[in-house]
Amino acid sequence: MRTERDYFGKVDIPKNALYGIQTMRTVQNLSFSGQLLKNYPEYIESLAMVKKAAALANLESGDLSPSMSNAIVDACNQLIQGNYHDHFIVDILHGGGGIGTNMNVNEVLTNLANEYLGGTIGEYKPVHPIDHVNASQSTSDVCHTSIRLAIVRCFEQLDHELTEMYYVLERKSHQFMNVTTISRTCLQDAMRIQLGEVFSGYASVVKRRHHSLKDSVNSLLTVNLGATVIGNGVGASERYKEVVIEKLQDVTNMKVTKRNNLYDAAQNIDDLAQTSKQLSLLATTLIKVAKDLRLLSSGPEAGFSEISLPSVQAGSSFFPGKVNPVIPETMIQSCFQVLGCDRVVQAALEHGELDLNIFEGMAGANILNGINMLKNSTNSFTERCLKDIASNNERCIELSNTFIPVITELKEQLGYSAVSKLMKEHDREYIKNLLK
Amino acid sequence: MRTERDYFGKVDIPKNALYGIQTMRTVQNLSFSGQLLKNYPEYIESLAMVKKAAALANLESGDLSPSMSNAIVDACNQLIQGNYHDHFIVDILHGGGGIGTNMNVNEVLTNLANEYLGGTIGEYKPVHPIDHVNASQSTSDVCHTSIRLAIVRCFEQLDHELTEMYYVLERKSHQFMNVTTISRTCLQDAMRIQLGEVFSGYASVVKRRHHSLKDSVNSLLTVNLGATVIGNGVGASERYKEVVIEKLQDVTNMKVTKRNNLYDAAQNIDDLAQTSKQLSLLATTLIKVAKDLRLLSSGPEAGFSEISLPSVQAGSSFFPGKVNPVIPETMIQSCFQVLGCDRVVQAALEHGELDLNIFEGMAGANILNGINMLKNSTNSFTERCLKDIASNNERCIELSNTFIPVITELKEQLGYSAVSKLMKEHDREYIKNLLK
Amino acid sequence: MRTERDYFGKVDIPKNALYGIQTMRTVQNLSFSGQLLKNYPEYIESLAMVKKAAALANLESGDLSPSMSNAIVDACNQLIQGNYHDHFIVDILHGGGGIGTNMNVNEVLTNLANEYLGGTIGEYKPVHPIDHVNASQSTSDVCHTSIRLAIVRCFEQLDHELTEMYYVLERKSHQFMNVTTISRTCLQDAMRIQLGEVFSGYASVVKRRHHSLKDSVNSLLTVNLGATVIGNGVGASERYKEVVIEKLQDVTNMKVTKRNNLYDAAQNIDDLAQTSKQLSLLATTLIKVAKDLRLLSSGPEAGFSEISLPSVQAGSSFFPGKVNPVIPETMIQSCFQVLGCDRVVQAALEHGELDLNIFEGMAGANILNGINMLKNSTNSFTERCLKDIASNNERCIELSNTFIPVITELKEQLGYSAVSKLMKEHDREYIKNLLK
Amino acid sequence: MRTERDYFGKVDIPKNALYGIQTMRTVQNLSFSGQLLKNYPEYIESLAMVKKAAALANLESGDLSPSMSNAIVDACNQLIQGNYHDHFIVDILHGGGGIGTNMNVNEVLTNLANEYLGGTIGEYKPVHPIDHVNASQSTSDVCHTSIRLAIVRCFEQLDHELTEMYYVLERKSHQFMNVTTISRTCLQDAMRIQLGEVFSGYASVVKRRHHSLKDSVNSLLTVNLGATVIGNGVGASERYKEVVIEKLQDVTNMKVTKRNNLYDAAQNIDDLAQTSKQLSLLATTLIKVAKDLRLLSSGPEAGFSEISLPSVQAGSSFFPGKVNPVIPETMIQSCFQVLGCDRVVQAALEHGELDLNIFEGMAGANILNGINMLKNSTNSFTERCLKDIASNNERCIELSNTFIPVITELKEQLGYSAVSKLMKEHDREYIKNLLK
Repeated sequence: MRTERDYFGKVDIPKNALYGIQTMRTVQNLSFSGQLLKNYPEYIESLAMVKKAAALANLESGDLSPSMSNAIVDACNQLIQGNYHDHFIVDILHGGGGIGTNMNVNEVLTNLANEYLGGTIGEYKPVHPIDHVNASQSTSDVCHTSIRLAIVRCFEQLDHELTEMYYVLERKSHQFMNVTTISRTCLQDAMRIQLGEVFSGYASVVKRRHHSLKDSVNSLLTVNLGATVIGNGVGASERYKEVVIEKLQDVTNMKVTKRNNLYDAAQNIDDLAQTSKQLSLLATTLIKVAKDLRLLSSGPEAGFSEISLPSVQAGSSFFPGKVNPVIPETMIQSCFQVLGCDRVVQAALEHGELDLNIFEGMAGANILNGINMLKNSTNSFTERCLKDIASNNERCIELSNTFIPVITELKEQLGYSAVSKLMKEHDREYIKNLLK
Repeated sequence: MRTERDYFGKVDIPKNALYGIQTMRTVQNLSFSGQLLKNYPEYIESLAMVKKAAALANLESGDLSPSMSNAIVDACNQLIQGNYHDHFIVDILHGGGGIGTNMNVNEVLTNLANEYLGGTIGEYKPVHPIDHVNASQSTSDVCHTSIRLAIVRCFEQLDHELTEMYYVLERKSHQFMNVTTISRTCLQDAMRIQLGEVFSGYASVVKRRHHSLKDSVNSLLTVNLGATVIGNGVGASERYKEVVIEKLQDVTNMKVTKRNNLYDAAQNIDDLAQTSKQLSLLATTLIKVAKDLRLLSSGPEAGFSEISLPSVQAGSSFFPGKVNPVIPETMIQSCFQVLGCDRVVQAALEHGELDLNIFEGMAGANILNGINMLKNSTNSFTERCLKDIASNNERCIELSNTFIPVITELKEQLGYSAVSKLMKEHDREYIKNLLK
Repeated sequence: MRTERDYFGKVDIPKNALYGIQTMRTVQNLSFSGQLLKNYPEYIESLAMVKKAAALANLESGDLSPSMSNAIVDACNQLIQGNYHDHFIVDILHGGGGIGTNMNVNEVLTNLANEYLGGTIGEYKPVHPIDHVNASQSTSDVCHTSIRLAIVRCFEQLDHELTEMYYVLERKSHQFMNVTTISRTCLQDAMRIQLGEVFSGYASVVKRRHHSLKDSVNSLLTVNLGATVIGNGVGASERYKEVVIEKLQDVTNMKVTKRNNLYDAAQNIDDLAQTSKQLSLLATTLIKVAKDLRLLSSGPEAGFSEISLPSVQAGSSFFPGKVNPVIPETMIQSCFQVLGCDRVVQAALEHGELDLNIFEGMAGANILNGINMLKNSTNSFTERCLKDIASNNERCIELSNTFIPVITELKEQLGYSAVSKLMKEHDREYIKNLLK
Repeated sequence: MRTERDYFGKVDIPKNALYGIQTMRTVQNLSFSGQLLKNYPEYIESLAMVKKAAALANLESGDLSPSMSNAIVDACNQLIQGNYHDHFIVDILHGGGGIGTNMNVNEVLTNLANEYLGGTIGEYKPVHPIDHVNASQSTSDVCHTSIRLAIVRCFEQLDHELTEMYYVLERKSHQFMNVTTISRTCLQDAMRIQLGEVFSGYASVVKRRHHSLKDSVNSLLTVNLGATVIGNGVGASERYKEVVIEKLQDVTNMKVTKRNNLYDAAQNIDDLAQTSKQLSLLATTLIKVAKDLRLLSSGPEAGFSEISLPSVQAGSSFFPGKVNPVIPETMIQSCFQVLGCDRVVQAALEHGELDLNIFEGMAGANILNGINMLKNSTNSFTERCLKDIASNNERCIELSNTFIPVITELKEQLGYSAVSKLMKEHDREYIKNLLK
């Protein structure tokens, strides 16, 4: 153990811990969820990228010496490469507007940078967490920028999964285009439809929601680094402010741009909330697809039974041989969780006030949670369910030859009056046989 | 037209209008919804009951003269009898913590009272809206108390409808107790069940939610009249505060009691919010019942088709002969609206602050809206749908003799090992015939 | 009274009513909300435009005779001009997937068209509501298309109001740019800020949300007319389907286009839900602005008191001279209602199933309600509040010279170490005077 | 590694793992959240208690031999004592109605029981997970009962924390009862109030919400063990059904009772949803208290500054000496998460269908999450904030002597007309000095 001190007293810290007293205070005072920063690699890496861009800009502006900037950059690179993430022990949902997150990064980077320069962990010199690692920055612009980069990077795999899901649905649509079955409105029998047409609708909506979400995620690359606390950039030199976004582009290799109105950027998190709402629109659409699959595969004998889902495991501890649609149900449940995440983001947006929305970090964390859950569940849904859905062709044909679809088909072929005549003169079974 | 004046200028008012300038200002400044107070008779009547109780208490405490108290009481009686409601023209959702509602009542009562005393509309003498009609009161305690009385009174018919719904479901449960059909878990075929058992579940949950809602509504009879603005009762005499709740009991003939902590009563509207959440629990439960009925009646040929709902009207402009479950769908839609109302109440609760929750009136109005909609839709659901549901017995028997229910039944009768042996030696059709 | 008959029996109808038995059945069976179609002129007019486009397309395809098409077009024009709207008596929220809405329009148009052709109300000949007015259409594509047109048209005034709000906020931002005041983070004193900078943030977020909402609304011009029930266009001739969207462009003079995948269009209402979520994002942002104004104008003596809002009416029945922020509070309350509307739309989206989302009409109605409420409240907010906000310059200067802003300013001018030295050697008052 | 086989193929399992193939399938197919069962000790222990009660009832009914029952009971005791919890590796949110949870418990208990009887892990004999550990049970009744027990047990600490919070608020209320300050309505200055009266409101609402939540939690002790899948108890012997609830009372030492209607119990999870809504009411109330504290402590110079919150850590990386209300903000954020959890529970309730709500486990898990978060945050809020709040007496007196409170006080003492006269003849400063 080593001991660190601040204005509020002293705290014991594990000897080799790269974090310091400010991190520990956040752990002790503000932890409640068990969702720790160390489980969010994209966020830690994004924080490190921001700190690296700042160190490079501070070098160029003369606010940091070359050796100090160099040491901080080296420390950032360690985190970007995925090292030392288990030193990020603050609760990602902690209160206080992100101070704990920023200080955890500042302290870890400081200790790494000092080690690089031959110093000792816990000494905070020559590199200091506030004066150097946080130079020209504030918690506000650092966390604003980092959480957005994290979401963009975290979205990459979901982006891939949704593309894959679309292609699989398209393929299924083609595969089932010759299968004639029945459509339903208000759950009542309606006209004939090709099973492939139903699936083309699924493919189409997934694509639209995917693209709309993607647009929203990409808009998060417009950030406020350089704005410091409330947008006016007080605390940062002119040169730093001129170059820091450019440095961030270099460090991230992403098309990062600067917000037009930096006061607005600090006041509002509607860009995050919009992304969350796009996630929830996607999720709700996937609920519909998954529920449809449950319904269309209901049975095997006492339900619709138009399709069969692949069996992946026993569905019941009670019924021998019962196979349940557990994959679609997992898809549904993950989407319900996304609706829950969105509710939190809405609260964060709703309770923002004055010059800085201090609930931004919580909003961002819930978006990351939503994306992470959907990543896993969409992959499973596509790979373990959608890909191997089979149509029950005989059953589909049988359903398509029931009364309502047949009479609708006859109306189309013979006209309304001829059909009315038929209906008066013959019974349902006779009419149903006319189309066979 | 007549002209009235206040500190802010003058306003033209229809000559015979019982409302005055404060009402008009609320109409002009704060109206946005088209939901006018005049469409909420229970609320107007409750406001009048509160004003009547106050006038009687003010008489007893000597804060009002007998003639003035008498005139105000007479005016209140007019409103309680349902007269003059079309003079309540403020938006029930207006901002400002209920001031517009209270002033609309104060002005109407003042003009009626002055007419009673031989005065002229628009003169506000001898009776004055603030000094006499509002004597010993504030908007805060008047509206707090009135909206709760209004909800209790408005609930009466829903109370009746839910009792009726329960009895009908119980009756249906008995009627269908001999109909053996299939149960489903995860929408997949499961064991046999009596259709009446399914309906007993519906009856049981409706009863529980009904009673739980009723408890919550009844708790609203604990009110804060006499607390004036923030709970300390400043502005009201001791004697008035001692008797006003008793007067309100007399006037309403309801078991009205006084809140323990009047500061709490002004700060918080969680009692309203709890009622709203109980409404939404009821609504969500009814969604489930209505959706089940749609599913169980899906078909007629391509669905579950275990029951038939009564036909009430043509279901489609397109398909000849198609009958849709429009009554359950109306039930569902009214419940969705209740969820929307509850969302508003949640916002009202969430944004309360300091010594007075100024969004209380909006919360109350949304609860009234929810109750009113459910009144209508539950009546229709019970009378036009539930009462005449028919079971399709042959179809139910057929479904109950499919493989999974049969094998489960055999397992129960013969034991697991005998059934396993059967399953190895014989095909599904053979096994299904064993129980016939 | 006249009597009309259908398969389910006979119904009495007021003699001169333009609606007929199907409308009455919807009123009797499916009404629960008191929100009647006749109060939604944009929706009625849009339905008439769709029916007119269909009649013109049916003429071109030969599905309707010139005289019949002509009579229907004439009837549509009446509705488009705003006549006969009080014959639209169905509940806009009725269940059954819009059948009641479509039949109300069909019946009114039929009776008008027959009158035009010399026929009699209630006879339904020569023009027939299903065979002619509804020719080549279904409830599904008619209502889908009409509700979207209605939203686009209804949005026009809100569009105007939001532009106006933006300009007023911009103007205020310039006006207050020389007023130095204090910023706050976590509600605690922070650095100096220009009051105009705060307002520039308000202007900026209003503009962004406005434009994002507008994009979403405009995307609703992509519709499915010609798709009939589930997307395959069964029931409509090829020629009709080729020209009907073009006709709709002519009739509406709007850039209407056709959906790519018509099955998707019938299955999903995520485009409506996206619009609703954009409305709720706008609303939540406006809540923040309005709550900020309340906070910044809190006082006059015991609060922040940096700005003064225009007084529009007495704020209290209790305190002489108290003026409350009733206009911002009305803005807030209307936004809470929008959150409620969005919750209903979410339910409608969430419970969609299979080939047709039957809750679309309810979703659309809630969006119309949200837009209508915001129209009124944003107009009032801009005209009666924002335009006349005044800054309390002396108070702002006083706040900007408190300790935290001063020390931050000194840190910027003298550097961190010089300031630390100052803080050790002098008390707060001494330091605060350094910048004067 | 060992290999296990089922109908779907074979799976490798770590050699000493107590779980088996069904557990692994759930991990592979249905995991998406990273929220693993092993982090929910109360749930594991409750599952073990249920299994123990079942084993004892199966012994009494003769469905299990004494040695087998004994071995299973011993295994259950291990889990109840907190051992082997890291063998619970399924996602607590997995789809499929709890099958993965039940099988994880069944497999772990089976392997432990077989070890106890001298058998080998992975052999599943003599004790079999379905035939013996799950005997007379189904996933449905086991999980229904266990999740409710888990919530009741998990609530115990929150129960304690809320009692403690209440007492601290009461104590603060008494402490501040002599501090006269100002009240505010609509954030505008209103009458005098004792600071202790404000806090008495906080204490009162916390107590009410606490008790209401507690009632709701306690109602969860009414369970359906013995109902098997859908309520009819098929698969369980009469004797077992007679005694199993009694056994559960013995095992848990809690007042467990049996549901009246077991079909209802399987169909509906409104009892869980009610608990969740009670949690969200509590949370929303705590948001209000925490936001009030932020507002009342705003400043130190540019805000209300009536109270001072204890400083627990530096509030900013930017401003030297700035202390932010990070504990109340953590309280708020945990409550936002509870609102998110409740949204998921609402979805679970809303999408239930037919004979079994398969989303029950997800609903329960979200309630556990909400309770766990509130446990931590309420403890911190009480201990690190509420206990050491200080009143700023001079500031309070200053605020209580501003114009509106003074004029209200004078109105109370002198009457309205005397005050009106004063206001006409003197300026505000003169009047404010009258009460000093």
